[in-house]
Amino acid sequence: MARAQQGMVGAGLDAVLLTTEADIRYVTGFLTRFWESPTRPWYVLLPSAGPPVAVIPAIGAALMERTWVSDIRTWNAPDPEDDGVSLLADTIRSVVGSSARLGVPMTLESHLRMPLSDWHRLQAMVPSVDFTDDADTMRRTRMVKSEAEIAKVRHACAIAGRAFDRVPEIARAGVPLDRVFRQFQSLCLDEGADWVPYLAGAADRAGYHDVISPADDRPLANGDVLMLDTGLIWDGYFCDFDRNFAVGKPLAHVTSAHARLIEAVRAGMDMARPGATASDLFHAMDRVLGDGERSTDAGRLGHGLGLQLTEGLSLIAKDHTVLQAGMIITLEPGITLADGRILVHEEDIVIRDGGAEFLSPPASGDIVVLGG
Amino acid sequence: MARAQQGMVGAGLDAVLLTTEADIRYVTGFLTRFWESPTRPWYVLLPSAGPPVAVIPAIGAALMERTWVSDIRTWNAPDPEDDGVSLLADTIRSVVGSSARLGVPMTLESHLRMPLSDWHRLQAMVPSVDFTDDADTMRRTRMVKSEAEIAKVRHACAIAGRAFDRVPEIARAGVPLDRVFRQFQSLCLDEGADWVPYLAGAADRAGYHDVISPADDRPLANGDVLMLDTGLIWDGYFCDFDRNFAVGKPLAHVTSAHARLIEAVRAGMDMARPGATASDLFHAMDRVLGDGERSTDAGRLGHGLGLQLTEGLSLIAKDHTVLQAGMIITLEPGITLADGRILVHEEDIVIRDGGAEFLSPPASGDIVVLGG
Repeated sequence: MARAQQGMVGAGLDAVLLTTEADIRYVTGFLTRFWESPTRPWYVLLPSAGPPVAVIPAIGAALMERTWVSDIRTWNAPDPEDDGVSLLADTIRSVVGSSARLGVPMTLESHLRMPLSDWHRLQAMVPSVDFTDDADTMRRTRMVKSEAEIAKVRHACAIAGRAFDRVPEIARAGVPLDRVFRQFQSLCLDEGADWVPYLAGAADRAGYHDVISPADDRPLANGDVLMLDTGLIWDGYFCDFDRNFAVGKPLAHVTSAHARLIEAVRAGMDMARPGATASDLFHAMDRVLGDGERSTDAGRLGHGLGLQLTEGLSLIAKDHTVLQAGMIITLEPGITLADGRILVHEEDIVIRDGGAEFLSPPASGDIVVLGG
Repeated sequence: MARAQQGMVGAGLDAVLLTTEADIRYVTGFLTRFWESPTRPWYVLLPSAGPPVAVIPAIGAALMERTWVSDIRTWNAPDPEDDGVSLLADTIRSVVGSSARLGVPMTLESHLRMPLSDWHRLQAMVPSVDFTDDADTMRRTRMVKSEAEIAKVRHACAIAGRAFDRVPEIARAGVPLDRVFRQFQSLCLDEGADWVPYLAGAADRAGYHDVISPADDRPLANGDVLMLDTGLIWDGYFCDFDRNFAVGKPLAHVTSAHARLIEAVRAGMDMARPGATASDLFHAMDRVLGDGERSTDAGRLGHGLGLQLTEGLSLIAKDHTVLQAGMIITLEPGITLADGRILVHEEDIVIRDGGAEFLSPPASGDIVVLGG
């Protein structure tokens, strides 16, 4: 919070207004799965000096009182006539004044989690307040993790690592993919995940066609490559990495493509240190992936990670964010095989002084073989 | 879609612009857990006549091609210089024209899932387009479910019902609450859930203090009431209901409070038919709950349900939405006990001609007793 406030002062902001789960949790510690309900808006006003003020539905008061936030203002939500807007306007007036400069996250990867009509009403209620971009304060602050945050992501990664080690228990030729998905989520829970917000994957002959489709009931078959990619949560923090498995003996070009992906990860690791840019990491991996094979439509070869499955930076040619110690990112090279099928591999790392360190237990170049 | 387009014509809209998972899935059938990543915006333009147009990141093209949508325009996201905005502006111009009246969901329960700065850029790129409220078109259309949708929610409810029946396998005195949470999610998966986006609950002596906190590691103890409330997904549709359990022999006032909650659900069911209002259902249940006990800070006694855990209407005094056959809602009475602890019960129902029908297997008035 101190770093965010420093950024606000630098950007000439009197406060930032936060509306999303991740930004609000980052500042307050307010952790609940209740955000799954889109009904109620939640607001936190963080002044450039002093503690944050929560303006929230009454249903959240008991939990917010257990955080370090002491100034908690509530209304009975949902209220179709005034769903917290006038309370929020009053709070802005009393905490930062009627003519404050108030930042709102509004660039890449952000959204405003409140009804647009209430956003317009709020601006009309405090007409002298200058609502402006938060100058990337929240995104840049959250990108650099504390040791406590790094430990949580590492713990989440270890849970997923143990679950991946147990995939041979649940997946072999003949098992439908949707059953593999269900049982893999149970393995994650069994190994200690609090919940499993994200599981993607695919299985098809010698590669797959996309990595975001839900599972169907087609049984795994000899010659398939199965990929599972999980973003599980432990104590509010994500891991995000995948593993590929060969069902029965893999074809030679699958084996070599998988080895190439691991090689690309290593090239990313070699480049990953304070001072290098996101773009440098992209090019380091892209060079290994090679011409004509590099594009998988994913649009990037990795991203930031933390309170959200993806956050902060992207490993693309256009992202020139300079890496700093404490940043957690994924390395996620993909390769397109001759017939249009793809293979994707992903690991999680943290930038340290002078280098980087794996948070996920790194896979070897040899693809794991499941019973055919 | 036909009903949505009828609504658009009635409201004088040439198209609606959709940005959220639920609205986009409703129109296209595009089902993926990839929305967990906040990085990329997704757009669907639905004209008041004709098929929808998808303007989406390239990573989603393969999956979108498997839906009924044929006009799919993609860009390589994320792109920090132009993340689909000019492609979206071009699409608006070519599909509905430069001076269209374009609705966007912007009232209760909605949000705009795109960066606010891109929203401003889009408006500047098509200055003659009149961006306006969608006149509640999407919310009102989605509130009334088809038989196919009702069958999906019923299936999700049956899965959760079987998982609740198995709670005595995993919960008894001495078991930490966080282990109960993990194992209950595994039971849901084992019984057929695709995933478990929502699990809330609590356990404390003769009631609990709030219903949105994450689980801690306190072991269940004799005299506790354990509540588990799940929103699991089957084929893209939610259930949302809870069950209360007594750990060991329940105290008399817990037994009677639980029976009162079931009585309130029955009063809600008796009132639930086409022509009654959300407010009528609120008052019918509230009368049973009684003075001085009714408020639990939840703010409502039920809500709509479907593609989202909560959607559409709220059972509050101020919501005068008229019930129609096909609406799916939860009945969720809460009661505050003398010492400030609460008990909450929830069932899922569908409005039918002349009455209503349970989708969740309704609980009896007798609280289930777990091993003490």
